[in-house]
Amino acid sequence: MSNVEARLAALGLALPEPAAPVANYVGFTVSGKTIYVSGQVPWKDGKIHPVGQVGAEISVEEAKQAAALCFLYVLAQARAAAGGDLDRVARVLRITGYVNSAPGFGGQPAVVNGASDLAVAAFGEAGRHARSAVGVNALPGGAAVEVEAILELA
Amino acid sequence: MSNVEARLAALGLALPEPAAPVANYVGFTVSGKTIYVSGQVPWKDGKIHPVGQVGAEISVEEAKQAAALCFLYVLAQARAAAGGDLDRVARVLRITGYVNSAPGFGGQPAVVNGASDLAVAAFGEAGRHARSAVGVNALPGGAAVEVEAILELA
Amino acid sequence: MSNVEARLAALGLALPEPAAPVANYVGFTVSGKTIYVSGQVPWKDGKIHPVGQVGAEISVEEAKQAAALCFLYVLAQARAAAGGDLDRVARVLRITGYVNSAPGFGGQPAVVNGASDLAVAAFGEAGRHARSAVGVNALPGGAAVEVEAILELA
Repeated sequence: MSNVEARLAALGLALPEPAAPVANYVGFTVSGKTIYVSGQVPWKDGKIHPVGQVGAEISVEEAKQAAALCFLYVLAQARAAAGGDLDRVARVLRITGYVNSAPGFGGQPAVVNGASDLAVAAFGEAGRHARSAVGVNALPGGAAVEVEAILELA
Repeated sequence: MSNVEARLAALGLALPEPAAPVANYVGFTVSGKTIYVSGQVPWKDGKIHPVGQVGAEISVEEAKQAAALCFLYVLAQARAAAGGDLDRVARVLRITGYVNSAPGFGGQPAVVNGASDLAVAAFGEAGRHARSAVGVNALPGGAAVEVEAILELA
Repeated sequence: MSNVEARLAALGLALPEPAAPVANYVGFTVSGKTIYVSGQVPWKDGKIHPVGQVGAEISVEEAKQAAALCFLYVLAQARAAAGGDLDRVARVLRITGYVNSAPGFGGQPAVVNGASDLAVAAFGEAGRHARSAVGVNALPGGAAVEVEAILELA
């Protein structure tokens, strides 16, 4: 088990099966040392959950947990990109978090912290990343959050 | 004619003139082997078309065709980035598709498939890419879809 | 003083202190020659300003100035990424501008021109960049605009 996965296990977290794209795209691409990971939505028991707008039917705390779950799926893709060994990931370069937002909701950073905190839990200082947190009015399947990332191979 | 353009021609598709930026930006930049292509909206007969929100006045099928048209403009930029020869493009690394979405619409992936399918039609396996499909409430000129991409030079 | 900052000074512009991330992320990361700068919102006198939707309570002109201010914060991050010397930045590769948009507003490009114009004022031809201008229904703290960028080190 990689050190990264051991740290996640200590938090009670295991990597899920990477989400299988159902169309003409893939979960990640690699160019040189750069890993591009596709936007990940929160899957729970085979369906997207939670669904809805943050600031209305979804609370910030629930959405923050959803962002962490999205990033767990990012890590599952990154592990595959790194040949099965997350210790071959040198660092997280950028995270973009899209938050399905009710009109007037401005707490996107607090939501995306769920992904950022998990990045640092997994990689320590190498998990600190450039980040954009953005509000949107709609996401695939009504997901409350979607997270994409760029990482660097060692 | 490049192999890529021959495959497009077999589908009845020809590359349009690249859209000319009307401000202090350009259609693409190149850094090392990485091509960054600007967000492309669907131009038809000199104007942006279709205009409106998917899930309301625009159908998924119409928006999917618009996403393909956006990606055709991406290819026109990529050809210029590759010195006129799309066979010098090694692969498509990432596509981000922004879908102008009515409240509650969650079918962004089906829309962005229009771009993804064309990427694979043009480049085969090398056209499979990391992808994010996102819903937004507004796009330039009211466009139904906007597509940006990152590609890799050979 | 770098040539870039001298050009900005001639326009009456000084770089602000880089905005300090208040969570587990950073203002920028560097991978090889690539600088990824976090999404920047307009800070004025210690608070985010202007706040609101463009096309409703915020005018295009005010939002354009806000986009320029966001890009000034991008430059402050890029200077730090370049070891304090913006002349070590070779070029601007990509700008993404997220515009907090009222329903039906389609003037995002005119807004993001505020960032693009400042990029060219700072770097000349090397400031011309790939760009996406996108409308969204909500941004952190209600900001009218958010700007992220990718730059290249010399």
